Amino acid sequence: MIKVAINGYGTIGKRVADAVAAQPDMEVVGVSKTKPSAEAYVARQRGYPLYIAEMSKRQAFEDAGLEIAGDVTDMIKHADVVVDATPGGIGEKNKKLYELYGVKAIWQGGEDHEVAGFSFCSSCNYNEAKNRQFVRVVSCNTTGLCRIIHAMDERYGVGRVRATMVRRGSDPGEIKKGPVDAIVLNPVKVPSHHGPDVQTVLPQIDITTMAMIVPTTFMHMHALQMDLKSDATKEEILAIIEAHPRMGLVRPGTGITSTAELREYAQDLGRPRADLYESAIFADSIGLVGRELFLFQAIHQEADVVVENVDAIRAMMNAVDEAAVSIEMTNRALGFTAI
Amino acid sequence: MIKVAINGYGTIGKRVADAVAAQPDMEVVGVSKTKPSAEAYVARQRGYPLYIAEMSKRQAFEDAGLEIAGDVTDMIKHADVVVDATPGGIGEKNKKLYELYGVKAIWQGGEDHEVAGFSFCSSCNYNEAKNRQFVRVVSCNTTGLCRIIHAMDERYGVGRVRATMVRRGSDPGEIKKGPVDAIVLNPVKVPSHHGPDVQTVLPQIDITTMAMIVPTTFMHMHALQMDLKSDATKEEILAIIEAHPRMGLVRPGTGITSTAELREYAQDLGRPRADLYESAIFADSIGLVGRELFLFQAIHQEADVVVENVDAIRAMMNAVDEAAVSIEMTNRALGFTAI
Amino acid sequence: MIKVAINGYGTIGKRVADAVAAQPDMEVVGVSKTKPSAEAYVARQRGYPLYIAEMSKRQAFEDAGLEIAGDVTDMIKHADVVVDATPGGIGEKNKKLYELYGVKAIWQGGEDHEVAGFSFCSSCNYNEAKNRQFVRVVSCNTTGLCRIIHAMDERYGVGRVRATMVRRGSDPGEIKKGPVDAIVLNPVKVPSHHGPDVQTVLPQIDITTMAMIVPTTFMHMHALQMDLKSDATKEEILAIIEAHPRMGLVRPGTGITSTAELREYAQDLGRPRADLYESAIFADSIGLVGRELFLFQAIHQEADVVVENVDAIRAMMNAVDEAAVSIEMTNRALGFTAI
Amino acid sequence: MIKVAINGYGTIGKRVADAVAAQPDMEVVGVSKTKPSAEAYVARQRGYPLYIAEMSKRQAFEDAGLEIAGDVTDMIKHADVVVDATPGGIGEKNKKLYELYGVKAIWQGGEDHEVAGFSFCSSCNYNEAKNRQFVRVVSCNTTGLCRIIHAMDERYGVGRVRATMVRRGSDPGEIKKGPVDAIVLNPVKVPSHHGPDVQTVLPQIDITTMAMIVPTTFMHMHALQMDLKSDATKEEILAIIEAHPRMGLVRPGTGITSTAELREYAQDLGRPRADLYESAIFADSIGLVGRELFLFQAIHQEADVVVENVDAIRAMMNAVDEAAVSIEMTNRALGFTAI
Repeated sequence: MIKVAINGYGTIGKRVADAVAAQPDMEVVGVSKTKPSAEAYVARQRGYPLYIAEMSKRQAFEDAGLEIAGDVTDMIKHADVVVDATPGGIGEKNKKLYELYGVKAIWQGGEDHEVAGFSFCSSCNYNEAKNRQFVRVVSCNTTGLCRIIHAMDERYGVGRVRATMVRRGSDPGEIKKGPVDAIVLNPVKVPSHHGPDVQTVLPQIDITTMAMIVPTTFMHMHALQMDLKSDATKEEILAIIEAHPRMGLVRPGTGITSTAELREYAQDLGRPRADLYESAIFADSIGLVGRELFLFQAIHQEADVVVENVDAIRAMMNAVDEAAVSIEMTNRALGFTAI
Repeated sequence: MIKVAINGYGTIGKRVADAVAAQPDMEVVGVSKTKPSAEAYVARQRGYPLYIAEMSKRQAFEDAGLEIAGDVTDMIKHADVVVDATPGGIGEKNKKLYELYGVKAIWQGGEDHEVAGFSFCSSCNYNEAKNRQFVRVVSCNTTGLCRIIHAMDERYGVGRVRATMVRRGSDPGEIKKGPVDAIVLNPVKVPSHHGPDVQTVLPQIDITTMAMIVPTTFMHMHALQMDLKSDATKEEILAIIEAHPRMGLVRPGTGITSTAELREYAQDLGRPRADLYESAIFADSIGLVGRELFLFQAIHQEADVVVENVDAIRAMMNAVDEAAVSIEMTNRALGFTAI
Repeated sequence: MIKVAINGYGTIGKRVADAVAAQPDMEVVGVSKTKPSAEAYVARQRGYPLYIAEMSKRQAFEDAGLEIAGDVTDMIKHADVVVDATPGGIGEKNKKLYELYGVKAIWQGGEDHEVAGFSFCSSCNYNEAKNRQFVRVVSCNTTGLCRIIHAMDERYGVGRVRATMVRRGSDPGEIKKGPVDAIVLNPVKVPSHHGPDVQTVLPQIDITTMAMIVPTTFMHMHALQMDLKSDATKEEILAIIEAHPRMGLVRPGTGITSTAELREYAQDLGRPRADLYESAIFADSIGLVGRELFLFQAIHQEADVVVENVDAIRAMMNAVDEAAVSIEMTNRALGFTAI
Repeated sequence: MIKVAINGYGTIGKRVADAVAAQPDMEVVGVSKTKPSAEAYVARQRGYPLYIAEMSKRQAFEDAGLEIAGDVTDMIKHADVVVDATPGGIGEKNKKLYELYGVKAIWQGGEDHEVAGFSFCSSCNYNEAKNRQFVRVVSCNTTGLCRIIHAMDERYGVGRVRATMVRRGSDPGEIKKGPVDAIVLNPVKVPSHHGPDVQTVLPQIDITTMAMIVPTTFMHMHALQMDLKSDATKEEILAIIEAHPRMGLVRPGTGITSTAELREYAQDLGRPRADLYESAIFADSIGLVGRELFLFQAIHQEADVVVENVDAIRAMMNAVDEAAVSIEMTNRALGFTAI
């Protein structure tokens, strides 16, 4: 059993913990919180040992009826791999600790590529992650872009890729972040950082991206255009997506045309937390104008990287040789089938 | 086994179906849809026989790969009780059909009291529903009001009750209804219909309500004020709520101050569809100024009536003698424990 | 003085009426409403003669203290040009009336190109509108696209144009339309109708568009990419936009990065109704990658076509020979200067 | 001419500056900003001398083409009265400066009562503000409550007052604050601070308030209930509101039922920045149940205190003897008539 610690039990961390716990070859040895909150009670309900960043806060946790197993250093000592899901920028500061204890560590896309020196996407570069001490799983948006671009590139070759990302303003459980009624260019400057971030995984791709933020809470939407280098048909592309373990088709029969209906459907199908680990590509949106491909894909900002973290653990531990096998194990353990 | 049919497999109907299916003494004999959609696939996934309103649409369903068991009349013939969860106003038109086939029927709060001649809330008037052919489960807001008012009235006696209801603009899965950025008085006239609706269950209560609609999707919020007829303490009131099977306390330790955080917590705890069947009363909001009680409660518009429907079925079938026993059975089958 | 009647005094109609009234060579001979409402009082405040669609409603208007000058037919008899700003689809039904009375008429972009047989954008095809009986002013989004594409095409030649339009869910004064919390693909199919609509004005342009709807009320946002046929510099493009009478630059010094801040600024500068008649192009967003141009532009859905209607009137009446002169007259009368 | 300086040219400050500039007996001697932004350009457009908090930022302003008249201390020296509209909590820190220079100062409701030792509402306690050096204009919500409560109290006597305030999440021009999709109890504890704040102006009133925040940008909504001490009729109350210079009726004939429609109407009537200085009381909402009065009022958070600041200046300078005369002067200068 691979021993996994989750440093930062928040939006991503709590999902990674559950995904790890569901795997047959892994166990959660601990999760960490900085202060008592609703999520600390969730950790207790799940039975994850709870560690805290600063022992000076021990009393506050105990007053809230939450038992503390130790501090983050204690947690790390029990782990083969630490998944660092602390807020963007904090993760980098933890690097010294991981080096000191010689533990493997995974950062999220909120950190720079340089923190790990290697950026990961399961279906793109699993093999290159093998035996590494440090890996960075790219952000939700970058993961969504890499999956489809790599799949198209493998089959047809891909020329220039142009994407507009319409991002959610805040996560569903947040109450302080906006905007309430605005479209915000973020950044105003074109291109946005998402293109170079894709290139940390797929360096050869010519990609330019634009990004904005809108007042919604669930999922980003990508309007994607890419030039293919050879002829394709819509049927082929539908088949590639259908066969891909991390992309799903939103089928016209469902009548779904929005992120809200997609969440409702995920919830109805029993997905925990309505999580969509796969990119949700709208089948009807796939359009080919000559060799130019257009499509819309919705990306669940809280979920799509969760499964990537699980595969990254296996690659770093060299526990499973083939990407496809790890991906299949991860998916099966979470019981997810195409929507 | 009580045979239950769900006429109208939408927001409420699909939840009632799952709640019925989870009961040890009931089974779902069928659900009905008017057109193929995402929810029809959900019914199929659940294994509920699918009936349709008009046989002329059979082909559309079959083209979508959905097997049809018959029309609504066929469904009714298999049922002891029909839960009518069709859109407001449609339910009344179905009454003749239920009379014709002599089947018991439950309507939702979108219909007038007169459709059934009896309005129901599990913890208020279970016994009066026994052996009735027709029952109306009151709306989500009225259910939430009845629960707390009745509990306070039983213990302290209740004088005048004043409530402001801040209602969600659309359900989470809706995309056409607004408002996007407005507070809408609905109705402008004071009092709103909610007071008289409470009186269909609790006729003796002096209640006046005001209501508005705001741009959110999950839960209504009630700002409630009531004059108690005898002395009370905050501790007592907390204890009454804690002991009540259909009210839950939102505890200060969780840090939860909003509907969004409540949903996140429900989701984290594994509630299917993040459903909150119980009124969520904010412990910290409970304030006593003399004998005047103030509190905030959040009401999940999609969920709180679901469990009431299940109890109504038992009462109408005279299957369980005591309200408390039915309520406990319903709750246990759904696995819900205080948040 | 050109006599102008406004058929449909709503979001667009009320703005066209004020813009016409401000022109030195035009007058408003009447506006029409179907029912008494806040806008009918506004018409009275402005002193516009009020006509009604059906005389059967005369009493309702008079009960509201609103004097009625006659019905729509009466209004038309007084007009040289009717600006039809009735809801999409209704305008076409009015065509027979305009033909019967031999009056010139302008439709809005909610109607098909075929209703008028000619689609108009002031800075693109003013001359072709001269002496026409019927003209259609293209929609707000199409107007915004035509302005920049035509300006770039004139100077550099334009190859393929790709645009993603993120559209507001409802107008600021609407309360029924959503979505509240969703990104809606509208349409799901790519390309959207906006490309072909641009081609009704600029038939030679190779344009493909994708469109979605988000929960905001003020302005659409276009993420635009176009291939130029000759070399360009950012400085030149800034200069072209600055010199264009219907495009404005959002300058970095203002710190504005969103539609909400833009509205605030327009309001602060004293623009009536915060109206932005010009396309608001974010200076900082202009990016050139080789000969590929990227930019963001915000389009005020209630305002940008208003000034186009005024110019269309002059062209149809052959009242002013040069487009530039009419555009300058229109702008000056409204007192609008670059933001 | 009373010389007025505005310390903090933001949402409130920029409106106070324009309102002061419009008065026949006042002039704006300066406004202050901490950094260059869109609002600094607005100040320049208006011709208000621009002062800055720290001279070290002079270069940044000059690089943006904005001329600087000096620092805040320089500004204060030119003023009879400083209106401090800096963000909540900052104003108090400025007190020493005002004391040092012996200048009169007005704070906004974001500061505590103690900062000035006197809290002001034009129609409640104008006379008590005379000759004071320091005055605090109460917050937008408190102003709205004081106006109606005082008017009812004067006429009928008022017993207990209970109010639920549904507050906007962010101002229209903000983009960082939320919530996007939530109802937030703020505070969770009942009562909220608004009741005691009303008592800083009307100490004898028995008032308890509850408050929440919702995802909208324009106006707070108050659901108000008060016990009158003598008999009243709806007609009388309508007449009192109609005659009140700072309350306006939203009439049923307009069809307006929401804040969004109210803004649209204010904008259509030509109100600068769509500002509603008066409380907007929905005529149809006024309900009497015995001697209990219910009503809804909408409060424009950016505007209602603006006119109160102007009156406070006159009272502090003892420039106009009667409240009614100052209020009338203020209103007339802004050209506002009942909506």
